Amino acid sequence: MKVQSIESHAQVEMTLEGVRGVKMRMLIGPDDGAHNFHMRHFEVAPAGNTPHHSHDYEHEVLVLKGTGVVVSDQGERSFEAGDVIFISANERHQIMNRSGEPLEFVCLIPAPRDS
Amino acid sequence: MKVQSIESHAQVEMTLEGVRGVKMRMLIGPDDGAHNFHMRHFEVAPAGNTPHHSHDYEHEVLVLKGTGVVVSDQGERSFEAGDVIFISANERHQIMNRSGEPLEFVCLIPAPRDS
Repeated sequence: MKVQSIESHAQVEMTLEGVRGVKMRMLIGPDDGAHNFHMRHFEVAPAGNTPHHSHDYEHEVLVLKGTGVVVSDQGERSFEAGDVIFISANERHQIMNRSGEPLEFVCLIPAPRDS
Repeated sequence: MKVQSIESHAQVEMTLEGVRGVKMRMLIGPDDGAHNFHMRHFEVAPAGNTPHHSHDYEHEVLVLKGTGVVVSDQGERSFEAGDVIFISANERHQIMNRSGEPLEFVCLIPAPRDS
């Protein structure tokens, strides 16, 4: 059993192409013995964004703080703290923070096959 | 893509043996096309608890509101909003709300093999 605050997890700046102002924490991952799916925490600075991309796995997102906009093949939707977002596998998507405050959410993905 | 508030999801009283004062919402599940893992929301009333049980799959938990206690084979740990809890497969566990306020958390599990 692990019980640990979000803040006590190491936070790293994301350097993937197309990412701006995004920091990540691995909350539950391979080091915890999580072999099926992983929980990550993201903080997106004002004017920041995740990459506009697609991949063969889904996202399960819970918004913790702030507001944002998610763009997908289905158009643009705004969201706020307390919202749940599901993005299907292979759906092109991007999350943007157009507000003046930090945006925080957790995003869960299936464990990569090599983890 | 789905974007929907936690509160807009149907909430049902849990009736499993050993459960007291627990309501559940399926936030992301089979109806959304989630085939790998599911996000559920739980609200535990004061003096309520989940069952003291074990199963062959893990729990990935994020605490949203309130405080609680989790008991496992490794002992008892208290937790609060903003904490992350990982319970391994086959680890016997129970979550209790000993406070006077509702406890809310999300708990993710691998998709049952028949979903």
